[in-house]
Amino acid sequence: MILIGERINGMFTNVKQAIADKDKKVIQDLAKKQTDAGATYLDVNVGTAAADQEAAMQWLVESIQETCSTPLSLDSQKPAVIAAGLKAVNAENGVILNSTPLNKKSDEKIFDKYMEMADNAGPKACIITLTMDKNGVPQDIDTRVAIAADIVSKAMEKGFDSQRLFIDPIILPVKVPNAQVQPGNILAAIDQIRYLSEPAPHMTIGLSNLSQGATERSLINRVFLAMAIARGMDSAIVDVLDQDLMNVVATSEMLMNKQIYSDSFLKVYSGG
Amino acid sequence: MILIGERINGMFTNVKQAIADKDKKVIQDLAKKQTDAGATYLDVNVGTAAADQEAAMQWLVESIQETCSTPLSLDSQKPAVIAAGLKAVNAENGVILNSTPLNKKSDEKIFDKYMEMADNAGPKACIITLTMDKNGVPQDIDTRVAIAADIVSKAMEKGFDSQRLFIDPIILPVKVPNAQVQPGNILAAIDQIRYLSEPAPHMTIGLSNLSQGATERSLINRVFLAMAIARGMDSAIVDVLDQDLMNVVATSEMLMNKQIYSDSFLKVYSGG
Repeated sequence: MILIGERINGMFTNVKQAIADKDKKVIQDLAKKQTDAGATYLDVNVGTAAADQEAAMQWLVESIQETCSTPLSLDSQKPAVIAAGLKAVNAENGVILNSTPLNKKSDEKIFDKYMEMADNAGPKACIITLTMDKNGVPQDIDTRVAIAADIVSKAMEKGFDSQRLFIDPIILPVKVPNAQVQPGNILAAIDQIRYLSEPAPHMTIGLSNLSQGATERSLINRVFLAMAIARGMDSAIVDVLDQDLMNVVATSEMLMNKQIYSDSFLKVYSGG
Repeated sequence: MILIGERINGMFTNVKQAIADKDKKVIQDLAKKQTDAGATYLDVNVGTAAADQEAAMQWLVESIQETCSTPLSLDSQKPAVIAAGLKAVNAENGVILNSTPLNKKSDEKIFDKYMEMADNAGPKACIITLTMDKNGVPQDIDTRVAIAADIVSKAMEKGFDSQRLFIDPIILPVKVPNAQVQPGNILAAIDQIRYLSEPAPHMTIGLSNLSQGATERSLINRVFLAMAIARGMDSAIVDVLDQDLMNVVATSEMLMNKQIYSDSFLKVYSGG
């Protein structure tokens, strides 16, 4: 399971404050803690409060890389902010451009531009692409899969390896009116997206978004993550510091035969 | 979700002792507690220690029915023990014959006999049928589905409503060597079995069997249950007194759009 640790994000008060104060220690602690907890990548998002988002992204990347070699996921809806992060990042072990812009103006050429940026960053650079188009986030299964098919086919045309793609079918909060049917649709979409190429593109979701504003957040996240792993989702942007969630990841992988059962399967998974 | 409470089973020391001592209180307490916790049915299994299993089954049924009107699931591999339970049972609110025998001698006619027993018990009497044949428990997906198809078609021939069938694809313990691939196979089988008839037959599993002898039993049970509900499994034989498990059931049903989200969705589900 490719786990992208979500905690270095300016929407969290302590990170927002650290960015404002240029307090490296808070950021470096979060980087180390998430790495120890099993993060494959560390997401880096400056949030919306930073005055100069490009400078903030570069400072975050540099601060993390001073103490930690875990690959980064540069998270912004602005191509310029991701580009700023790419200038500072060490992409030798990989980097993720997270993600193609989430706005209604996104056009055909934006994905080409992201593939070019990724290629310039290095052979291990990946892209998270959202299954949305000019009409926004689709409500049904078929449109999500059609957009994913379009993404995979465009990548193939450009010779961009499908293994460098993370398709994100976009999970909406259960608390959003009329979004109740979405979790089932996401699972059905995942079921189909994994057959779009051989090898399949990676699939990821911003898991915490599902439980935004809801009660029982960790429980909701855990239950859906188990369901999605069973359908073949192989990545998620999550709170890796949530030990209960990490135990569900380990158990799901064991049940789906990605890890053999032993009495210490939880410890084996977390590398402990 | 049709939850069959597993606790009144002679394999548990306190139940075994209560049967030996004819101590109704222990049994009646378990019946009430499981009903309060949300059991749709109460499983009744005399275990293997009782000297006269038929008499023990009747005593259990009578003891439970003195204080509780929750329908029962008469659980034995011996048709005579189920028949003894049927004599004592009040089947007005339903009853389950659990299950068609789990042995290699089971032949074509045994299922006919069970349908006849169920019909004699009343229109709400159901049968749990295991996807096994003369060769034992199949290791692959296709054989499980083929056996389920055979069961559904035999029921149709006899005019036995598919909604009175609970197909059990038989989950093996993760700790059994070479059983690691089974959970994924069960999920794939469930995915196909639900399309065998319209309306679909119910599907159930003896969930606790999955974690038999394993560490982290409740966690393993919870994770697999979420996965199976997401595939359409609508019943399980479980420990309804495991509150964490019940919360996963409520959350799974909410995510699969069987229950609408509200901030008190856990309480709403448990009727609290």
